[in-house]
Amino acid sequence: MLVVAGLGLCGTRDISVGLLREAEDADEIFLETYTSVSPGLRVEDLVSVLGRGVKLVTRKDLEDESARTVLEVAARGKALLLTIGNPLIATTHSSIVVEAAKRGIKVRVLPAPSIIDGIIASTGLHVYKFGRVVSLVFPEDPSLKNYPYTPYSVLKDNVSRGLHTIFLLDIRADEGRYMLFREASELLLRLEERFQENVVDENTLVIGVARATAEDEKVFAGRISEAINADLGNAPHTLIVPGELHDSEIDFLHYKTGRPVEVFKSWNAKVNAKKKQSGTSPTWREP
Amino acid sequence: MLVVAGLGLCGTRDISVGLLREAEDADEIFLETYTSVSPGLRVEDLVSVLGRGVKLVTRKDLEDESARTVLEVAARGKALLLTIGNPLIATTHSSIVVEAAKRGIKVRVLPAPSIIDGIIASTGLHVYKFGRVVSLVFPEDPSLKNYPYTPYSVLKDNVSRGLHTIFLLDIRADEGRYMLFREASELLLRLEERFQENVVDENTLVIGVARATAEDEKVFAGRISEAINADLGNAPHTLIVPGELHDSEIDFLHYKTGRPVEVFKSWNAKVNAKKKQSGTSPTWREP
Repeated sequence: MLVVAGLGLCGTRDISVGLLREAEDADEIFLETYTSVSPGLRVEDLVSVLGRGVKLVTRKDLEDESARTVLEVAARGKALLLTIGNPLIATTHSSIVVEAAKRGIKVRVLPAPSIIDGIIASTGLHVYKFGRVVSLVFPEDPSLKNYPYTPYSVLKDNVSRGLHTIFLLDIRADEGRYMLFREASELLLRLEERFQENVVDENTLVIGVARATAEDEKVFAGRISEAINADLGNAPHTLIVPGELHDSEIDFLHYKTGRPVEVFKSWNAKVNAKKKQSGTSPTWREP
Repeated sequence: MLVVAGLGLCGTRDISVGLLREAEDADEIFLETYTSVSPGLRVEDLVSVLGRGVKLVTRKDLEDESARTVLEVAARGKALLLTIGNPLIATTHSSIVVEAAKRGIKVRVLPAPSIIDGIIASTGLHVYKFGRVVSLVFPEDPSLKNYPYTPYSVLKDNVSRGLHTIFLLDIRADEGRYMLFREASELLLRLEERFQENVVDENTLVIGVARATAEDEKVFAGRISEAINADLGNAPHTLIVPGELHDSEIDFLHYKTGRPVEVFKSWNAKVNAKKKQSGTSPTWREP
């Protein structure tokens, strides 16, 4: 049997009763830490909470070797594969599940809080107001000539509908590189220069969430021109360009960031103007 | 201090180490079960896992009375408010956090797996492919004359972009009414009759997830004309109208539901035709 289980957002805090039970009789426990980053996660703490040793697996182990070691254990007993956040968010994990199923191995997936849950808990943003989520990767070339259009286009599309856009920021754990909120803010401004479709300007409101829900989480709200200098501390960071904010979202952000309610209200006016300009059909119509 | 913590998706399985720690020194533990439903959750099991008694709170306690009892405990000591799924998904919870903050009470929010995490774990659908999430409520009048346009319009918008649409189905725990997948399927067909914008037909592919990630979860994939007769057992259920499916999503759904890969491939062809028809701008463009 293969059990894929999530560790959630920070350290050992989100480890569930169900995961502890699975760990008890697992033949081997594997830990994958290259697709995501968990603030405060130390292998020795994990070992102490689980009461068991864990084996670190690399990208090579899981992708190039088709997770051979993990599946061999799963074929003859029970392998527990631990991932940060919610499992299957990385396509690597979903491929392993399919591979196991093909070999007739039973699979169980245990959910855990994802970064989306963390953002909701840390910002009070409504789940119904999120547009498509998108990743922002480090530019390969400084000119952005070959930079993917997708993040910019998703933002444009979401803004025109008044929806929030979550940017998941690049994590290259094997290289020790983690995109920070201020770098992401700068990148968005540069994408505007590159594509010039009037999606971002220096007054664009951005929300930065660092180490969502952790003891030392930081939530920033302000203009992108301020955000490029904001120091939110260590990774992981997330950047959100909000759409139209509901009154209760505004109340929450005001409480969380200390920013005056007016900042969010004037942003709403701007989003509304963009919605009208783009001629998006209303999401509510009188019957 | 007010601690709002999620119980996750089913029974006591997703209770976290962090939540157990918070429960130890809480002055009072409150449980709210009217905004959501957790299969297999029994108060006696919860009490046994927490090693503490819990007090059930009703909608009236939290909404009409402005959570007075909870905040009184929080003001003089530590109140732990337990919610199903991830906290703050219900706006009630976010209002309580704001209310506590206004009164100068410290707040901590502990994340937990939400139904979105459950869907990802149970279906292998990619988080990047979700469009806006929407709720489907029970019709007040059989003619659907005053039924909200939003769910239909969100689906139309997502389909035209090739994105997946998650329908969160109505839960009226206080009345013991839970919308089932087959009822939701029927309602979608009736919304098509009502609004007639060619969004749904009897060949529309729908995915039904019942009791996501629980031991007895069921995942269904098939035409909506079959779905209206599909019995997936007890609530909670979720309905997804997929957009364009990635190869790895198809592999996963094939493994999970046993449906031939061709079912999903021909659905992709249909989604693609709709995307072209609606003239949605591509989300990728050559630089």
